[in-house]
Amino acid sequence: MLAWKLTLKTPEYPAGRELILIANDVTFQAGSFGVKEDQFFQKASELARVRGLPRIYVSCNSGARVGLVEELKPLYKVQWIDAADCGKGFEYLYLLKADYEKLPPGSVEVHKIAGPSGEERFVLDAIIGEGMKSTKGGIGVENLQGSGLIAGETSRAYQDTFTLSYITGRSVGIGAYLNRLGQRNIQMVSSPMILTGYAALNKLLGKNVYQSQDQLGGPQIMVPNGVTHQVVRDDQEGMAAILDWLSFVPKDISAPVPICQPSGVDPWDRDVDFEPSQLPYDPRDFLRGVIDHEGNRMRGFFDAGSWVEYLEGWGRTVITGRARLGGIPMGVIAVETRSVDRLVPADPSNPESCEVKESMGGKVWFPDSAFKTAQALKDFNRGENLPVIIFANWRGFSGGTRDMYNEILKFGAMIVDALVEYKHPIFIYIPKHGELRGGAWVVIDPAINPEKMEMYADLEARGGILEPPGIVEVKYRAPQQVEAMHRIDEKLKQLDAKVSGAQGAEKQGLEAEIKAREKQLLPLYTSVATTFADLHDRAGRMKAKGVIRDSISWKNSRRYFYWRVKRRVLQDYLISRLQKVDLTLSHKDSEALINKWAADANVDIQSDMKMVAWLESQNVEARAESIRTSFLKTHIKELFEQLPAAERSGLLSSLQGK
Amino acid sequence: MLAWKLTLKTPEYPAGRELILIANDVTFQAGSFGVKEDQFFQKASELARVRGLPRIYVSCNSGARVGLVEELKPLYKVQWIDAADCGKGFEYLYLLKADYEKLPPGSVEVHKIAGPSGEERFVLDAIIGEGMKSTKGGIGVENLQGSGLIAGETSRAYQDTFTLSYITGRSVGIGAYLNRLGQRNIQMVSSPMILTGYAALNKLLGKNVYQSQDQLGGPQIMVPNGVTHQVVRDDQEGMAAILDWLSFVPKDISAPVPICQPSGVDPWDRDVDFEPSQLPYDPRDFLRGVIDHEGNRMRGFFDAGSWVEYLEGWGRTVITGRARLGGIPMGVIAVETRSVDRLVPADPSNPESCEVKESMGGKVWFPDSAFKTAQALKDFNRGENLPVIIFANWRGFSGGTRDMYNEILKFGAMIVDALVEYKHPIFIYIPKHGELRGGAWVVIDPAINPEKMEMYADLEARGGILEPPGIVEVKYRAPQQVEAMHRIDEKLKQLDAKVSGAQGAEKQGLEAEIKAREKQLLPLYTSVATTFADLHDRAGRMKAKGVIRDSISWKNSRRYFYWRVKRRVLQDYLISRLQKVDLTLSHKDSEALINKWAADANVDIQSDMKMVAWLESQNVEARAESIRTSFLKTHIKELFEQLPAAERSGLLSSLQGK
Repeated sequence: MLAWKLTLKTPEYPAGRELILIANDVTFQAGSFGVKEDQFFQKASELARVRGLPRIYVSCNSGARVGLVEELKPLYKVQWIDAADCGKGFEYLYLLKADYEKLPPGSVEVHKIAGPSGEERFVLDAIIGEGMKSTKGGIGVENLQGSGLIAGETSRAYQDTFTLSYITGRSVGIGAYLNRLGQRNIQMVSSPMILTGYAALNKLLGKNVYQSQDQLGGPQIMVPNGVTHQVVRDDQEGMAAILDWLSFVPKDISAPVPICQPSGVDPWDRDVDFEPSQLPYDPRDFLRGVIDHEGNRMRGFFDAGSWVEYLEGWGRTVITGRARLGGIPMGVIAVETRSVDRLVPADPSNPESCEVKESMGGKVWFPDSAFKTAQALKDFNRGENLPVIIFANWRGFSGGTRDMYNEILKFGAMIVDALVEYKHPIFIYIPKHGELRGGAWVVIDPAINPEKMEMYADLEARGGILEPPGIVEVKYRAPQQVEAMHRIDEKLKQLDAKVSGAQGAEKQGLEAEIKAREKQLLPLYTSVATTFADLHDRAGRMKAKGVIRDSISWKNSRRYFYWRVKRRVLQDYLISRLQKVDLTLSHKDSEALINKWAADANVDIQSDMKMVAWLESQNVEARAESIRTSFLKTHIKELFEQLPAAERSGLLSSLQGK
Repeated sequence: MLAWKLTLKTPEYPAGRELILIANDVTFQAGSFGVKEDQFFQKASELARVRGLPRIYVSCNSGARVGLVEELKPLYKVQWIDAADCGKGFEYLYLLKADYEKLPPGSVEVHKIAGPSGEERFVLDAIIGEGMKSTKGGIGVENLQGSGLIAGETSRAYQDTFTLSYITGRSVGIGAYLNRLGQRNIQMVSSPMILTGYAALNKLLGKNVYQSQDQLGGPQIMVPNGVTHQVVRDDQEGMAAILDWLSFVPKDISAPVPICQPSGVDPWDRDVDFEPSQLPYDPRDFLRGVIDHEGNRMRGFFDAGSWVEYLEGWGRTVITGRARLGGIPMGVIAVETRSVDRLVPADPSNPESCEVKESMGGKVWFPDSAFKTAQALKDFNRGENLPVIIFANWRGFSGGTRDMYNEILKFGAMIVDALVEYKHPIFIYIPKHGELRGGAWVVIDPAINPEKMEMYADLEARGGILEPPGIVEVKYRAPQQVEAMHRIDEKLKQLDAKVSGAQGAEKQGLEAEIKAREKQLLPLYTSVATTFADLHDRAGRMKAKGVIRDSISWKNSRRYFYWRVKRRVLQDYLISRLQKVDLTLSHKDSEALINKWAADANVDIQSDMKMVAWLESQNVEARAESIRTSFLKTHIKELFEQLPAAERSGLLSSLQGK
């Protein structure tokens, strides 16, 4: 194993930063994992974890190191059942006394028996290899224990700091698992991740099913299943991808995200040119901007050139990535509005299977895209400290037999679990012509984590439990629509007036006329009822009911969120510092304290722009120090009161000496 | 919504216990979730969470409550594009001044325009319904906010206490999600969990694809996909299943598992009669015991009658459940040794799809059974506080194209993640004739969580990276096998002696004879080499390398683990109490402290039986109290030294007054 503590000198923020880089040394047994490599890996990773530094693993290995005790091969004897006919098999392997006594103690486990000619025989019960050269660094279960050690270490590292693996060569067994346990992966095209080699699988299956490792764990498998976040063509592209990703990552786990100074090339103070339409469109166009058919540049929501998509090939009804808003790094989740196809590859080991194409509608969560949403949130949350914006535009979850069977309930619930534990600000924004319904709303409502989540809607957005045609079927059915006709339609009102005075055939005729008119009008009044229902789903109602914080017009959204996100990032960082000093402070308390400080300084706490200016001028450490003393005093008093009375005066006198 | 705080009087331990029971009140709109129901649910659940009490949710609901503002239906007018021909459509809905002014303030959003005859018109921009009777309790987005509230609450409840849902009627939308967010589910056969009703799906698809809700979320879907842990036929069976499950659950989250007094009927001091064979067998037979073909009762590992299987229909190459060992509740994970078939149902919405049968080998982890293993560990860990035993018997993970594509790396990694966070003792035991190889060993090695995990193997068990034939192919190939022949085989030795002195045709003849003999012997020496390799995989080597704590014979395993598990449960509970009092104590420190106390009392700390007796005689609270004072004193001193010097004397005088 190799490891470096690097200081990067990058042209952009942060100017000089440290990270831990761990790599397989492929000069030794093609980077296999033995006991020493495992311990080394663990120590290097722990350093990253304890200091909260980014940890990059360059993966190129052949898995746990295997071996046999070579020194025994020339020594053991075989007790054949019939020495004259070996074909009858053998009873046991053994050592002669002279050979046995030459071995270092503990290298074998034996039991002693007498041979046919009375000679002492040491029957082999177990081969251990203690003290043998060939077992140095491990050959068997001890390497598996080492693999367990680094598996656990990597699982913890993902929780505690920023982990990223770059797969630049074949990664086998524990190597493949280390990549997944660190979760974030960049894979080079020719570098498969595998558990068992293809040749061994062919042997197991008894036929030549597989032709390459790529069939098992190349990008064609690991991109569509979301193990790989990003694919690169070569190591140069790989290094660039790592640096790009690091530009979104704080210098250590306790630092806020690295905010660049807005470049001036793409100012915060501009419209979002691209406008979502009611027809299906590519949501990347509003994230990164686009050149339209007439060659006009339509700028998007984020800083030009800052959008990077990850997990692109998996769960394609949801789009996830990272981008900057006026220099602020953000996690991004958006919704595909177009239908996409998912290709499930054929299983080479099952001759009856074939590639299956599954069609998935836009604006709907499927099991894979729900899992992807949760995965992206988990990645953003840990080690990246990213504020997130979700451009919410979902009609719901796919609830047919196929997707219910494919555990949509589990993956949808994962979104809630990921939001509950999210530690940084989250902004939900229903974009222009977007909609958010029923189950899809439920799993991203700010009530899930009110300290961190805020919801907004464009004035042209919709939100509700069912879509209007659906609620009309339940709550505004045909009989009620007919009532509306008789109230509104002039012709029906005239007929109603006539029929009340009529009798016999005339009445029957009028009634038939009424029925005909009703039938003619029904589709029109269904449309009226649908509009009536739709009026319940407007941003005005969402704001009046307090389910959104405000309605924000699409064109102006970049301006609004630039200040809002910046305020929340600065404010939440200050809150986290205060809470570290005073353990009793809740988020709400801290926010009230900050608002009080700002109000005392005559700052308009309603204005995000003014609050940003004030927050940027604050000395965070001095503010923390100011509440530290009073917390310490209160806390010491509380602890002191918990002491048995007899212990108190003794402690006091020892404190007086300080 | 309904909720009760119940005190159960059960005949078995614990005699009187409290729990929180929440149920849908189906007398009101079939148990739909409105704002008030949501708040009520949240409060009741929070009570369970704060007190750490078991929380049972009886689920039978129609999801979030929908509605329209009924009071407006008789009031609004329609502005047709052409009043004479409604078919041309309409422009907007509006209210006349008189009607508008009758409405409570805030019930609609409008803009005022002049009508064709100059009259004032109030065009509807949004319908809110503030102050209207029909919107009491919520009709739209406010109910979705409430659903979000209880979704987040339930996600937290699963982390903080024991949650169990009993699905006794159809559960829709948020109702279905609440079940999954609480994770543990008992489903009554006729009670589907659905997101969208089948009629609405048929409408969406434009044809009659589905005939029932059961096709979407009945047990035939929710059992094989592992959303449902257990199915019952009726409510009586359901209530019995809840009580059975509760018998494994501690009275609150901070209590140890409820240990029954060993019943006497099935003493700890007996053999495990059923012996695993090398041929495939049903591992349930050694868990619960079995009557063999000759009518003999072969007792299993656990107390007779205590085994309950959960998640039976999902990921069937792994078996999970709960059972008692000498009265101690345990979580259990065992391995199916037989091949099983998995039936993937046809997708009714895709006419080309058909039911697919996938065969899965025994002793192998597949994506679903890896997920199931992680799920079981998460359930055991949270709110159940269960010690776990894993009867490990895996050849590895399935690494073919199908399973690599189906995210085996993700689900395998989940096992490591679940073990890393496990807070209670875990015992890994490779049973008689069991084996544990490569990747499968890695994800359950005790190095993942050494404070909680211990590993054991039967004397007849095997552990290694590759299976012997596999390692022979890599490290003991034909040329080396031929070397062994020439060393061992008498005939070859004679030929070798002859050939060294021979020349010409004689030499060629001898060489041909040697080749023939080598060819004849090769399969026999491959078998010798395989045995040589196999000798590296014995319990003796595992113990010598320190990867297992001990080798335990299968017959005696019940006796051994009874005392070992009991010791660890009592000891770890004491450690958790000590750590709550002294925040600086590590697990290791605490264990050393307990060992010192025991040694001071002349207890043999090597003997689990003697330690159990000593631990049972301890007053845990008194032990905790004894270290509390010294921790408090040290801690107060540390905090005091962090105070600015100027603050110290002031604080001292205020403390002196106490």
